[in-house]
Amino acid sequence: MSTRLIDSLVTTPALAAAFDDEAYVGAMVAFECALARAQARVGVIPAAAAEAIVRAAEEASFDVRELARESRAHATVALPFVQALTTRVEAVDRTAAAYVHRGATSQDVIDTALVLCVRRAWTSIAADHRRIVDALRRLSDAHAQTVMLGRTLLQPAAPTTFGLKVAGWLGGIARAWRGWLTSYRSLLVVQCGGAAGTLAAVGPRALDVERAVADELGLGVPDAPWHAHRDRVAAFAAAAGIYAGTLAKAARDIALLMQPEIGEAAERGGGSSAMPQKRNPSGSTIVLAAAQRLPGLVSSVLAGMAVEHERSIGGWQAEASAVADAVQAAGAAAAALADVLESLVVDASRMRRNLDATRGQVLAEQLLVMLAPHLGRARATELVKDAVVESQRSSRSFAEVIESMPEAMAHLTAQDVAVLAAPERHLGAAEAFRTRLIDRAFAAEE
Amino acid sequence: MSTRLIDSLVTTPALAAAFDDEAYVGAMVAFECALARAQARVGVIPAAAAEAIVRAAEEASFDVRELARESRAHATVALPFVQALTTRVEAVDRTAAAYVHRGATSQDVIDTALVLCVRRAWTSIAADHRRIVDALRRLSDAHAQTVMLGRTLLQPAAPTTFGLKVAGWLGGIARAWRGWLTSYRSLLVVQCGGAAGTLAAVGPRALDVERAVADELGLGVPDAPWHAHRDRVAAFAAAAGIYAGTLAKAARDIALLMQPEIGEAAERGGGSSAMPQKRNPSGSTIVLAAAQRLPGLVSSVLAGMAVEHERSIGGWQAEASAVADAVQAAGAAAAALADVLESLVVDASRMRRNLDATRGQVLAEQLLVMLAPHLGRARATELVKDAVVESQRSSRSFAEVIESMPEAMAHLTAQDVAVLAAPERHLGAAEAFRTRLIDRAFAAEE
Amino acid sequence: MSTRLIDSLVTTPALAAAFDDEAYVGAMVAFECALARAQARVGVIPAAAAEAIVRAAEEASFDVRELARESRAHATVALPFVQALTTRVEAVDRTAAAYVHRGATSQDVIDTALVLCVRRAWTSIAADHRRIVDALRRLSDAHAQTVMLGRTLLQPAAPTTFGLKVAGWLGGIARAWRGWLTSYRSLLVVQCGGAAGTLAAVGPRALDVERAVADELGLGVPDAPWHAHRDRVAAFAAAAGIYAGTLAKAARDIALLMQPEIGEAAERGGGSSAMPQKRNPSGSTIVLAAAQRLPGLVSSVLAGMAVEHERSIGGWQAEASAVADAVQAAGAAAAALADVLESLVVDASRMRRNLDATRGQVLAEQLLVMLAPHLGRARATELVKDAVVESQRSSRSFAEVIESMPEAMAHLTAQDVAVLAAPERHLGAAEAFRTRLIDRAFAAEE
Amino acid sequence: MSTRLIDSLVTTPALAAAFDDEAYVGAMVAFECALARAQARVGVIPAAAAEAIVRAAEEASFDVRELARESRAHATVALPFVQALTTRVEAVDRTAAAYVHRGATSQDVIDTALVLCVRRAWTSIAADHRRIVDALRRLSDAHAQTVMLGRTLLQPAAPTTFGLKVAGWLGGIARAWRGWLTSYRSLLVVQCGGAAGTLAAVGPRALDVERAVADELGLGVPDAPWHAHRDRVAAFAAAAGIYAGTLAKAARDIALLMQPEIGEAAERGGGSSAMPQKRNPSGSTIVLAAAQRLPGLVSSVLAGMAVEHERSIGGWQAEASAVADAVQAAGAAAAALADVLESLVVDASRMRRNLDATRGQVLAEQLLVMLAPHLGRARATELVKDAVVESQRSSRSFAEVIESMPEAMAHLTAQDVAVLAAPERHLGAAEAFRTRLIDRAFAAEE
Repeated sequence: MSTRLIDSLVTTPALAAAFDDEAYVGAMVAFECALARAQARVGVIPAAAAEAIVRAAEEASFDVRELARESRAHATVALPFVQALTTRVEAVDRTAAAYVHRGATSQDVIDTALVLCVRRAWTSIAADHRRIVDALRRLSDAHAQTVMLGRTLLQPAAPTTFGLKVAGWLGGIARAWRGWLTSYRSLLVVQCGGAAGTLAAVGPRALDVERAVADELGLGVPDAPWHAHRDRVAAFAAAAGIYAGTLAKAARDIALLMQPEIGEAAERGGGSSAMPQKRNPSGSTIVLAAAQRLPGLVSSVLAGMAVEHERSIGGWQAEASAVADAVQAAGAAAAALADVLESLVVDASRMRRNLDATRGQVLAEQLLVMLAPHLGRARATELVKDAVVESQRSSRSFAEVIESMPEAMAHLTAQDVAVLAAPERHLGAAEAFRTRLIDRAFAAEE
Repeated sequence: MSTRLIDSLVTTPALAAAFDDEAYVGAMVAFECALARAQARVGVIPAAAAEAIVRAAEEASFDVRELARESRAHATVALPFVQALTTRVEAVDRTAAAYVHRGATSQDVIDTALVLCVRRAWTSIAADHRRIVDALRRLSDAHAQTVMLGRTLLQPAAPTTFGLKVAGWLGGIARAWRGWLTSYRSLLVVQCGGAAGTLAAVGPRALDVERAVADELGLGVPDAPWHAHRDRVAAFAAAAGIYAGTLAKAARDIALLMQPEIGEAAERGGGSSAMPQKRNPSGSTIVLAAAQRLPGLVSSVLAGMAVEHERSIGGWQAEASAVADAVQAAGAAAAALADVLESLVVDASRMRRNLDATRGQVLAEQLLVMLAPHLGRARATELVKDAVVESQRSSRSFAEVIESMPEAMAHLTAQDVAVLAAPERHLGAAEAFRTRLIDRAFAAEE
Repeated sequence: MSTRLIDSLVTTPALAAAFDDEAYVGAMVAFECALARAQARVGVIPAAAAEAIVRAAEEASFDVRELARESRAHATVALPFVQALTTRVEAVDRTAAAYVHRGATSQDVIDTALVLCVRRAWTSIAADHRRIVDALRRLSDAHAQTVMLGRTLLQPAAPTTFGLKVAGWLGGIARAWRGWLTSYRSLLVVQCGGAAGTLAAVGPRALDVERAVADELGLGVPDAPWHAHRDRVAAFAAAAGIYAGTLAKAARDIALLMQPEIGEAAERGGGSSAMPQKRNPSGSTIVLAAAQRLPGLVSSVLAGMAVEHERSIGGWQAEASAVADAVQAAGAAAAALADVLESLVVDASRMRRNLDATRGQVLAEQLLVMLAPHLGRARATELVKDAVVESQRSSRSFAEVIESMPEAMAHLTAQDVAVLAAPERHLGAAEAFRTRLIDRAFAAEE
Repeated sequence: MSTRLIDSLVTTPALAAAFDDEAYVGAMVAFECALARAQARVGVIPAAAAEAIVRAAEEASFDVRELARESRAHATVALPFVQALTTRVEAVDRTAAAYVHRGATSQDVIDTALVLCVRRAWTSIAADHRRIVDALRRLSDAHAQTVMLGRTLLQPAAPTTFGLKVAGWLGGIARAWRGWLTSYRSLLVVQCGGAAGTLAAVGPRALDVERAVADELGLGVPDAPWHAHRDRVAAFAAAAGIYAGTLAKAARDIALLMQPEIGEAAERGGGSSAMPQKRNPSGSTIVLAAAQRLPGLVSSVLAGMAVEHERSIGGWQAEASAVADAVQAAGAAAAALADVLESLVVDASRMRRNLDATRGQVLAEQLLVMLAPHLGRARATELVKDAVVESQRSSRSFAEVIESMPEAMAHLTAQDVAVLAAPERHLGAAEAFRTRLIDRAFAAEE
C-alpha cells in the first residue's frame, strides 16, 4: 500500500515505504518512546511510567484517516497523534499518561520523525548508489580505449573515449554523493526543544534528557534546537537535487546515445503500449523524470527557511512533504540508473563508425594548432576551412585532402598527417583524466 | 486510505480521493471504455466487442502494487495497465481482447486520465471557492465603515477600511479564479493521438473516433493531439499557483492581524501540543503551507515543456505527479481559507485603538499635501517632521501639536485640522474602490 | 550601454534597452509628469505647476549611481528619485515643487514604471512573434507532404509529416501567445493608490485624477490599486514562462534533428572557438538557454504574492528584477527562434532515408491492429514481434517478411501489405490535424 | 556604471562591479593571458609570443556592444572575444596571434572567467559576513539575560531570551556559511579541457599546461575538465541559497519585532516618499527581497545540470547569468543585514512588557507538567485551561489565579508558584544553548 500509482515513476516501493503512514506513525512513536525512556533514565519521570508508555505506544494502532483530518484542524499532525497516544496510555496506565510527550512540543515529534524516515530511506539509496559507482567503474575500465566522438551542442567535436565519458559521470556522481552524505550526516540530529526551544518544561536536567533522547534514537545532539533554523534540512534537500542532477546527466547522455541513428549504447529498455517493435530508454526516462522534480522541490524548501520567530506560519509546515518527495525522487533516479548501468550494452564498433563518418574533420582543430604558427592564424583558419569543405564535398578523408594541399604539407610531417588520420592518436589526456576521476571518486568513497 | 499522513496539510480527503489509486485506475478504465464504445459507435469495431470490454473493465480489479512495479520497467503505468485489462477482457471474451486500446498509445490513457482526475477534483475546489467569495463579500460589506490602519512594510501608513482590505483579497482571488477557470476549461480536452499523434492505426474514420471518445467522456476535442505540447497543462498549473498566491495573501494578513499585540482579527484557530493557552492561526498556516508548494511545482511543470519530438524522455513523465500535487495544494489552501473566513472574528474597536495609538501621525502625508503649496515642499516637510517628533515626544495628538504651530496654522482652516483629528475623514476613495472590486469580482463570477 | 555582457544570451539589445537605466528613469519621469498633468487637468493643482514639473522632469538628468546607492537606504528607488526630481523642479519653480508626486506613493511610481517598461519591450517581442508564426506557417505548408519518422522517447515511432510537426509547434506557440497577450493587456493598468491605496491625499476628486493619469499614459484603470495584489504581474510572468516553454519545444526538436547522425533539419548555425569544422545549433541553444531562466523566475514572482498588508517586506521589492529578467529571456528566446526558423534548412530526402532505415518496422502497430481481430491479441502480438525480429536479423523489409508468413497473409490483402510498405499511406489524420492547428492558430491571432 | 537601477536592491555596487562588463572581459583576458604564459612556461609556445599576447590583451579595449551582438550569433561570447583578441594581437605581432587561445575552447574561457568573477565578489561578501557574525555575537552576549516572549505561529509561546534568539540566527548563518565556503573552495578550479575535454590539441604536455594555467590564476586543478559536469557550480549556487535563507530568517524576525505594536527591536530604517512619519525596516526588506531571488535561481542552475554529452544546448549557456544573479543577491542580503545588525536598537523593557501582558499564561505548559502526575493528564489539562480562561477574563495574573485554585495548590509549593510568576526563572537551557551556538559558530569560523 505504499506507492501511490500516479507517483510510481518518482519513487520506489522501498522509498515509498520509508515515508508511508506506517513508517511515519512509527517514527512519531519512536520519538515519544525515546523521550519517555530518556526521562526515566535521567530520572525525571518514573521508570514504570516510561515502560507503560513504550508498551502502549508499540502496541497501539492509530486511525490514520482520523489523524489526517484532525491535523488540518491544528496545522500539525503531532497534536492529534499525541492525544491519541495519551488515550492509549491512559487505557493501560492512568498515571503514566501524565508523562506522555512531557516537556516536548509538536515540532519535536515532527522534525525527529522526518529525520528517522529519511534515515530509513537512506539505506536503500546508499545501496543503489553503490551499484551505480561499481557499474560505472567497470564500464569505464572496460572502455578505457574505446574511441568515440566527443559531441558539443550535439555536434561532433574532437574524439574522446567512452571510458572518459563514463568516468566523467562517475566523477560528478561521486562528488555530489559526498556532498549529500555530508549533509545527511549533519541532518541526523534530534529535535528536542520544547515549546519555545529552551526545554524549560523538562526541568533542570534538560540537557541530559536531550542527550538521552538522541542516544535512544541513535541520533546526534545539535548545537541547539533547530525548530526555527532549517539550514540542515535545506542543505540536505539541495544536495539531493545536486545528486539527482548528476544522475540525470548520465541518463540524458545514454538516451541520446541510444537513438537508433546513433546507436552507440542501449539500455535493456521497456516497451510501448502501441508499438511492438519499440525498445525505449525507459530507465533513463525514469531517471530524468524523477530528477526533474528536484529543482522545484529544492526551491520550495529554500523558500521556507525564513521562519517567523520560533515557529513559522506555513514555511515549516510545507517542508516535510517536499523533503519526502525530494528523497524519493532522487532515490528513484538512483535505483533506475543503477539498473540501466548494470545492463548497459555498448557498441564500440558503432562508436568508431560514427567517428569515421566525419572523415577526420573533427581533427580540424589539431590541424589549425599545427599550421597557425607557420601560416599565421588567419591564413591557417582559411586553409583548414577549405579542407573541411573539400572533404565534405568530395567525401574524401580529411587527411587525404590535406595531403593534396601543398601549402599545408610544406609545414607538416608524415607523422602529423598520420595523427590526422588516426583519431585514437588524438586523445590527449583522456586516459590521465579518466584515472584521476576514478581515483578521486573512490578516495572520496572511503 | 486516500490521504498520505505526511501530506495531510497539503491536500484534503476529497482532493486526495480525486488522485488516489482507485480514482486513477478508474480514469484509465474510463478512457479505455470510452475508446471502445466510440469505435463501436463509429463502426470500426464490433459493438459486442465494445460491450465486452466495458463490462470486463468495469468489473475488473487491478493489483496496484503490481502496476506500480511494472510501470518502472516501462516508464509508464499505461502499458501494464493495458496488459492487465487485456487479460481481464480475454478471460471474458477472447475476440473482444483484440480491440482493447485499439489505435491508442500509452500517453492517450495517461493524459486523458489526468484530465479526468482533475475534473473530479475541480468540483470540490469550486465549492470551496464559492464559500470564500461569499464570505469575503459578507465581511467586506459588514466592515465597509470599519476604519483601521493601513500598513506598509509592517509600519502604520494612512488609514483604510477593513472592508476595502477584504475587498482587495476578494479582487485578487476572483481575478485569479477567472484565470484558473479559463485554463481549466481549456484543459478539458481528450488526448487521442495514437503512436505518433496521427491516429493512423485507427483508420480512415479517426476524426470521428476522436470526437466520439471526447463525447463519451464529456470532454472537448482539441485542435490536435497535444502529447508533445504541454502548454494547456502548464497554463493550468501556473494558474493554480497564481490562485494559491492570492489565497496566501489573505492568509498572511490574517495571521499578522491575529498577533495578540495587534489583535484585530482572529480565526477560530487550533491548539498546541505543549501549551494549553495557545490559539494558533492554524487555518491560515495551512493556507500558507499549501500555497508554498505551488511555485516549485509550477516551475517543475514549466521546465518539462520542452518535449523531445513526439514524446519526451522525462519531462512529460514527471508532469502528472506535479499537477496532482499542485491541484491538491491549491485546493487544500482554498478549503482552509474558506473555513478561516467563515468564522473570522473581527475586532473593530481594537482596529480603532491601534489606529488611535499613532495619535494621528499617520495623517502626516495629508498635512504635507496641504502645506507644501504654501510653504514650499522643503519647509513643509521639515515642519511636518517636527510635528511628528513633537507628537511622539509629548504623547499629544498630531492635530493638537499642529494647532500649536503658528506657521502651520497660518495656512490651515478648522476643517483641515478636524480632518487631521479624524482618520475616518481621510479614507479617500476607499469605499469607491471597495464597491468596484466587489462589482467586478461578481461580474467575473457570472 | 544596454546589454550586460554576461547576460547577452538571455536578452537582446532592444529588450535590454526597455529596462535599462535610461528607460527605467524615463518611465518614472513619465509617471510623475502624467500625475502632474492629470491633477492640473482635473483642477486640483495649478496648470503652471504641472507645466513646470513636466518641463523640469523632461530636461533633468539623474545620477543613476547615486539613485542606486540611495535606493538601498530606503528599500526603494522611488524615494531618492522623487527627491532628486523635486530638487530639479525647485531649481526652476519653487512653487511647483510642492506639487511633485502629490498624493502618490513610491509604489505608484515603481509599479507604473514597470508596466511602461514592459509595454516598450512588448513591441519588439510582438514583432518577433509575428516572424515566428509566419515562418512556421510557411514551413508547415511547404512540408505538408514531407513524411518523416515520428519519434517517442527518442526512438522511431509511427510516421508523421514535418508539416504536422511544425504545425504542432505553431499550435503551442499560438495558444501560449494568446495567453500571454491576454495577461499583458490585463497588466496595462496604472498603479495610483497613494500611501495606503485609498488615494486619500489626492482629495475628493481622486478617481478623476486616477482616470486622468491612466489616460495620460495610455493605460487602463484597474478595479482598485493593486499595490498589495500581484496576480496581474504573476499571471503575466507565468504566461511568459509558458510561451518560452513552447519556443523551447521547437528549439529542442530542431537541435535534435540537426544532429549529423540524423541530419533532417539545420539552422544556419554558429561556429566554435576551437573547431573550424563546426556548425552549431546556436540559435536553438539560445532559445533553450533563455527559456531555462523562466521556470525559476516565475516561481520567484509567485512566491512573492503573499504581500504583508498594504506593502510587503521583500516580496514585492524582489518582483521588478524578476519580471524584467523574465520578459527579456522570453523575448530573447523569441528573437532567436525567429532567426532559426526563417533560415531553417529541411532535408526531406534525409527524413525519408531515416524512415526507410527502419525497414517499415514502425508500421508494426498497424499490423497488430489488422491481425488482432483474426488471431487474437496475444498471438498477433507474438507474430508481429517475430516479424520485427526477423526484419532486423535479415535486413529485409518488414513488408517482405510479412509476405513470407502464411499465418499473417491468411488475413491480409495485397492492399494491406502495400500500406505496410508505404509509410506515406500510414499518416492517418496528420493533414487534418495540421490544417486544424493552423486555422486555429491564425484565428487566435485575430 | 555597474549597477542596473532596476536591480539596485538585489546587488551592491561592489558586487555588481564583480560581474560587470569590465570585470567579465577582464576575467576572459586573464584566462587567455594565463594560457599563453603557461604554454610558454611549459615550453610549448615561444616566450615572445606569450609576452606579445599578454601585452596586447592587457592594453586592448573591447567593444562590448559588438561582443554582445556577436555572442548571439554563436551562442557564446567567447568566440567573438577570442576573435577580437586575436585581431589585437595580430596588430602587434603577427606570429604571436597563432598562439592565442591555443588548444582551448570557448567553455574554458567562460567557465574560468565565471570562477574569477565569483572570486572577486567573494572578498566583499566575506567582509560583510564577518560584520554579521561579529554583530550577532555582540548582540547575543549583551542580551543573554534579556527575557522575551518566544512566539510560535506568531502567538506567544514560552519565554526565551533575546540572546538565544540572536544566537539562533548566528548558528544558522554560521553553519550555512561553512557550507557556502566549502563549495566556494571547491569551485576555485580552472576549466581547461579544449574542444572535447581531453586537451588533445595542447599536445603531450597538456597536464603541465593545465597545472601552469591554474597556477597563473591562483586556482586549483580539478580531477578533470568539468565542462559537462556542473555539480560544483550547482553546489555553490545552492549553498548561496541556503546562506541567504538564514539571513532572511533573521531579517523577517527583525521586521516582525519592529512592528510598532510589538516594538521590541528596530533598525535605523528608511523613509517613505509619501509619509514623513514613517520609519521602515528598509534593511530587512532588502535582505528579504534579495533572498527571495535565490530559490528560483538555484532551481534554474539545478535544472541545467543534465548537460548533453560534452557541452549542452542551453542548460550550460543559461548558467552564468543565474550564478551571477545568485551571488549578487546573496551578497546584497549579507550587506544589508550587516548594516541592520550593526545599528539594531533593542528595547528590552518593551520585551518585558509584552511578556507581562500575557499575565504569565505562557507558563501554562509548565503548570501542566507539574500537575499532570498528580491529577492525571486529562484533569490537569482541564484545570490549566480553566486557569487560562479565568486569567484572561479577570485580567488577573496566571499565578494569582492558580493560587486561588485549591485543587491545583494541593500539589504545588510556594516555589512552584514563584516560578509561574517569574518568566525569567522558566528559561530552561536557553543560556546553555546560546553558548553552545556561539562556541560552535566561532569554532566553525576558524
